[in-house]
Amino acid sequence: AINMTPERLARIQTMFSNRQPDLTVCLENVHKTHNLSAVVRTADAVGIHDVHAIMHLDNPLKSGLRTGTAKGTQNWVNVHKHDELSQALAIFKRQGMQIVATNLSDRAVNYTEIDYTKPTALILGQEKYGISQQALAAADHHVVVPMLGMVQSLNVSVAGALILYQAQQQRLAAGMYGGECKLPIAEQQRLLFERGH
Amino acid sequence: AINMTPERLARIQTMFSNRQPDLTVCLENVHKTHNLSAVVRTADAVGIHDVHAIMHLDNPLKSGLRTGTAKGTQNWVNVHKHDELSQALAIFKRQGMQIVATNLSDRAVNYTEIDYTKPTALILGQEKYGISQQALAAADHHVVVPMLGMVQSLNVSVAGALILYQAQQQRLAAGMYGGECKLPIAEQQRLLFERGH
Ligand SMILES: C[S@@+](CC[C@H](N)C(=O)[O-])C[C@H]1O[C@@H](n2cnc3c(N)ncnc32)[C@H](O)[C@@H]1O
Ligand SMILES: C[S@@+](CC[C@H](N)C(=O)[O-])C[C@H]1O[C@@H](n2cnc3c(N)ncnc32)[C@H](O)[C@@H]1O
Repeated sequence: AINMTPERLARIQTMFSNRQPDLTVCLENVHKTHNLSAVVRTADAVGIHDVHAIMHLDNPLKSGLRTGTAKGTQNWVNVHKHDELSQALAIFKRQGMQIVATNLSDRAVNYTEIDYTKPTALILGQEKYGISQQALAAADHHVVVPMLGMVQSLNVSVAGALILYQAQQQRLAAGMYGGECKLPIAEQQRLLFERGH
Repeated sequence: AINMTPERLARIQTMFSNRQPDLTVCLENVHKTHNLSAVVRTADAVGIHDVHAIMHLDNPLKSGLRTGTAKGTQNWVNVHKHDELSQALAIFKRQGMQIVATNLSDRAVNYTEIDYTKPTALILGQEKYGISQQALAAADHHVVVPMLGMVQSLNVSVAGALILYQAQQQRLAAGMYGGECKLPIAEQQRLLFERGH
């Protein structure tokens, strides 16, 4: 049975009604726990329910973190690990999502120019090596966050947050938060029973 | 003598003309190098030339990082360390800056509602304990980044970046980047001779 205060239940139900199953973020082989953790916290705050993390064999986070959990997320965001990007791409295609890849290049468009109210998967690159050719090739849009100084790139969780909050802003303006919960009933029940205490 | 390619000199001059001496960010006793480093990279990208870091006696970064440098900034942003917040506040007051403090509270306004084209110092709180009462008391505005999920807070470098890019966006719209360099001549010369190789 569920045993919780009315306040906590109300908080969880607000979260449910803000969840955006048609918005996700995918990390390409990110190596640092603090970056993964920061992205998952941001994801939660913009209503993303499922985060995808590609973890190659040499990735120190591969076994370090249980699937479905990440430090600081209080277990409400699902983190799906994949060995290969193609597995995540197949999911995004099946869900009819546009693929937006970061690309630190003049040919990329300003991140504010994309319509994030459409079903969207954002792909972020690795701390050191950046995004893969495979991700760039699969993308519908390449985006960049404008930088006006001397550094070559932003921290990956910072860049991700700027783009995801742009999505939040557009979805708020479009009235996409609140109202009927868009998560499957089974997922709502699983969360309430497993985590709602 | 300065010895550099015309391309590099042009890059540095563009950076100079984008610098915003009347915009700064102040970190209250942040403990983690990766957070300081991420904030400094973001600062550079929005044209901030001086970052202030309050470091109490127990702060592991106090001696770990030379003043004026931070990993990942390639030495173009000045990091000023202070023992006490009051020292930084005195500088902001002298420069006629409005003080904007983050506050994870219902009484804070949405961070997009502030006019960041005014001379502005943004104060960010510590990873674990958040912002001090002293900073809140000194602030002209309290701001919060809206969160629509279950986590209680964003990573500090993420929250800082969202607010600083809001400032970048407003200042871009107001035509405040480019044109005559707003740094003192002596500072331009120091940078060119010390770092411009
Ligand atoms: C530290 S950067 C990678 C740097 C790498 N040397 C490169 O050239 O791609 C890690 C990731 O952060 C994201 N990122 C960083 N700065 C960005 C920017 N200005 N615009 C868009 N994405 C950015 C991208 O996803 C990138 O792959
Ligand atoms: C991890 S938070 C501190 C959490 C701390 N337990 C508290 O209650 O303040 C560290 C800093 O990040 C910034 N921050 C995090 N989330 C924020 C948000 N939603 N709005 C504004 N600032 C935020 C603030 O500067 C905060 O002091």
